[in-house]
Amino acid sequence: VTTRVLYDFTAEPGNNELSVREGETITITNQNIGGGWIEAKNSRGEVGLVPEDYIEVWSVKCSFLMLFTSNGNDPWAVFDSNASGGFSNNWAAQPEGTETGETSSSAWHSGGHGHPQAYQGPGNNSNKPMVLIAISFYMMRVRIYTVFQGGEAGPVWAYPDYQLDCVVADPKKGTKMYGLKSYIEYQVTPTTTNKPVNHRYKHFDWLYERLLDKYGSAIPIPCLPDKQVTGRFEEEFIKMRMERLQGWMTRMCRHPVVSSSEVFQLFLSYKDEKDWKMGKRKAEKDETVEVMIFSTIEPEGLPDLDLIEVEQKCEQFNRFTRAMDDGVKDLLTIGNEHWKRCTGPLPKEYQRIGKAFQNLSSVFNSSGYEGEATLTDALTAAGKTYEDIAQMVAEQPKKDLHFLMETNNEYKGLLGCFPDTIGVHKAAIEKVKEADKLVATGKITTSEKITMSKRASTMSYALQAEMNHFHSNRIYDYNRVMQQYLEQQGKFYEMVKCGNNSKSSRAFHNVGRC
Amino acid sequence: VTTRVLYDFTAEPGNNELSVREGETITITNQNIGGGWIEAKNSRGEVGLVPEDYIEVWSVKCSFLMLFTSNGNDPWAVFDSNASGGFSNNWAAQPEGTETGETSSSAWHSGGHGHPQAYQGPGNNSNKPMVLIAISFYMMRVRIYTVFQGGEAGPVWAYPDYQLDCVVADPKKGTKMYGLKSYIEYQVTPTTTNKPVNHRYKHFDWLYERLLDKYGSAIPIPCLPDKQVTGRFEEEFIKMRMERLQGWMTRMCRHPVVSSSEVFQLFLSYKDEKDWKMGKRKAEKDETVEVMIFSTIEPEGLPDLDLIEVEQKCEQFNRFTRAMDDGVKDLLTIGNEHWKRCTGPLPKEYQRIGKAFQNLSSVFNSSGYEGEATLTDALTAAGKTYEDIAQMVAEQPKKDLHFLMETNNEYKGLLGCFPDTIGVHKAAIEKVKEADKLVATGKITTSEKITMSKRASTMSYALQAEMNHFHSNRIYDYNRVMQQYLEQQGKFYEMVKCGNNSKSSRAFHNVGRC
Repeated sequence: VTTRVLYDFTAEPGNNELSVREGETITITNQNIGGGWIEAKNSRGEVGLVPEDYIEVWSVKCSFLMLFTSNGNDPWAVFDSNASGGFSNNWAAQPEGTETGETSSSAWHSGGHGHPQAYQGPGNNSNKPMVLIAISFYMMRVRIYTVFQGGEAGPVWAYPDYQLDCVVADPKKGTKMYGLKSYIEYQVTPTTTNKPVNHRYKHFDWLYERLLDKYGSAIPIPCLPDKQVTGRFEEEFIKMRMERLQGWMTRMCRHPVVSSSEVFQLFLSYKDEKDWKMGKRKAEKDETVEVMIFSTIEPEGLPDLDLIEVEQKCEQFNRFTRAMDDGVKDLLTIGNEHWKRCTGPLPKEYQRIGKAFQNLSSVFNSSGYEGEATLTDALTAAGKTYEDIAQMVAEQPKKDLHFLMETNNEYKGLLGCFPDTIGVHKAAIEKVKEADKLVATGKITTSEKITMSKRASTMSYALQAEMNHFHSNRIYDYNRVMQQYLEQQGKFYEMVKCGNNSKSSRAFHNVGRC
Repeated sequence: VTTRVLYDFTAEPGNNELSVREGETITITNQNIGGGWIEAKNSRGEVGLVPEDYIEVWSVKCSFLMLFTSNGNDPWAVFDSNASGGFSNNWAAQPEGTETGETSSSAWHSGGHGHPQAYQGPGNNSNKPMVLIAISFYMMRVRIYTVFQGGEAGPVWAYPDYQLDCVVADPKKGTKMYGLKSYIEYQVTPTTTNKPVNHRYKHFDWLYERLLDKYGSAIPIPCLPDKQVTGRFEEEFIKMRMERLQGWMTRMCRHPVVSSSEVFQLFLSYKDEKDWKMGKRKAEKDETVEVMIFSTIEPEGLPDLDLIEVEQKCEQFNRFTRAMDDGVKDLLTIGNEHWKRCTGPLPKEYQRIGKAFQNLSSVFNSSGYEGEATLTDALTAAGKTYEDIAQMVAEQPKKDLHFLMETNNEYKGLLGCFPDTIGVHKAAIEKVKEADKLVATGKITTSEKITMSKRASTMSYALQAEMNHFHSNRIYDYNRVMQQYLEQQGKFYEMVKCGNNSKSSRAFHNVGRC
């Protein structure tokens, strides 16, 4: 991919960096360096790292820029808040050409933003004036997310060679306004740069909002762990939030589209407050959001799908995600009940059994009968063993059920995003279904109809790639968590068995027969 | 012990039996043969087995026959239904010399029964006419139960060399009245004779009533398992009743006084209906019942206790039995709750977890994604393991908690008898306390006061012997049941652990990382 350098950048010696000049054209050789860097080659063949922010990425495929026509028959106008199930921007219902005057986050309005470059794609045979969107792409970094045929599994995202990950750790209390307000900062360290950055929960939340806005139509962006106002400085809460933020970040890191996005890289490469604020402003102005994201997706070398295939894929995913959602919720419900039992009544009962044994032992001790010390010792030991078991039982869920629940909670969140994603697809399919009628009545041209089909096809490929990403992650996650769960359960039963044997059972064997 | 032969008996050759003639005097050499036989020696020095029913046992110690005087100041008149807490015969409140005309089960009324032999004991210095009781002893078999100093443990019963036991088994449905009424007969086989006899529950119940009547003042006679009218032919119920009858019989067999009693031997040696009915009639006419049982107890070589010692022993036992009763009831309550949880909600939960895993597995199977067969297989295996665990958990109480509960239930029954026994003692103590005043006011003689003290002392020795019997049995029973319980619990955890490991955990290890 060839791109233009926006600002001068001078390489630091010995850092594998490449000096570039504003206006220079370079070729990106590796987009997946992470940490805000890309690898590029200049015209002289020199290769090195360049800050991503210093270059312009422009390779949005034209076909996706011809998003709708000005005749009021917006073939994508179905993507309103009802159809997509969660989008609050009612842009689709808005009459063509009206200007709200606000800096909308929707790219559909960018026609009025004053960017001059109207792109006329090669596939556009329409004479009607195009409302030109996505023109601001010139000014912004836009990556093309490639979907290609990944063997038997079907379409997959282009995965980076190196899997980005990060460690969320070391929560620290910080203060501002001369100590009047305090907050918790978490240290986030990407495995690529190994340079820690600090973020408060509200930064994570800002990132979540940006990712949801940008990718929500194509990629499930799971919610962050719950906000909590009271008790948010309590150790237990901070620890749990950190663990969940870690889970969320790991999931985002694993996603090739999300993890390579500018906003995500910004979050991971905080330099200073000024840089961060500038990055935030830029991200908030990003117009490649909502369904526009499909314009950045290229099904590389894949044939267009026909409507029936698109519809079938969509239905299949719909069925699967619903069924899995039910299954996961079911497991969570029963897991919660089990958790409650294992931390509440069950250990209490073991404790009471333990106390009853010990009580009986001290009653026996008061008998005045000689030679029952071994029995009373054994009974006391049995009682104490039961109190130990009570504690083991009460602590066990934290060791096994916890991770099973956390993983399923994460999946519940992920699966909760699919209805929106699928809703976008269904709406597109419905619109394409109407296309013949629209052509017949002269509302759209045949070429526009073909474009619509192509877009639906691209959306389907994106969905398939996303589902494959979801599936492979699901298999990895469930395999890991189940393994861990069963191992911990095995350890638990072994521990209880040993506790049983070592202390009390042996003590009774010492008693012998009377 | 020398005794008189009541009827001619001709020995069967080769059976170690001894021929005897009516009126002949023989010496009992072993009273503990069981099965309705004793070993005796005749005047010619020949030794052999003689049926117990054919001989008269007369060696009731005289001191205990002087039970009360006719002056209306019955020193034992405190043993009314209130003081003893359970006796329904209000004989003590009845005016002296009145005759109810009924054949009372109380020996106190036997003065009017027309038995001529009034025994004047050597220790009796009173000139007042004695109401002669216990004279029917000449006509009945009366054993003397010896209490002797058993080392550190204190007074103990004289134990037989051979511990009687019996097996209750093989419940069979029988009918009578031409099949109109049906009942269950249990086979009872004493380990002495190995000859099985059949008894219905109502026979057990009759035996219980006789034993309670006869020994209840001195020995706790635990209730039989509950009567039940509906569902009494159901297999589960019959099995449980049989098990509990077995427990009850074993406990009775273990008791040296009860097991050697004529009525108990009658029960174990059923020959034919005629013999049984005759034995029943005889037992029902037994007048050595209630407090009279103390007249058959001889503290061999033990010094008389003073009142303070008697009172102390009584209080000690009272405290112990109450404390143990509380402890046992507490254990039963928590055990019952645990039982319910282990057979109800807990396995249901494991089953639901199992189903949730299996359900998730079948959802995963429907993904259309290749290469997750190992995960879904492992998930299914984990689900099945959890269903197995559910079953193990649900069945476990029958394997361990059951015996712990049954044993504690038995002890609850036993301990429930002590308030009556202790009540009898307390009432006797109170009466002895009044003795000085009675002597001062000329209501009783000094010699009568001494007799009263002796009796209280004997009662205390009987109680001590009984407590020692109770303690040694308790230690044996609790040691055994706790050993069994903990062993079974250990097996359970081992089983669950193995179930966990073998099926599902290994299955997940096969999956590897994706």
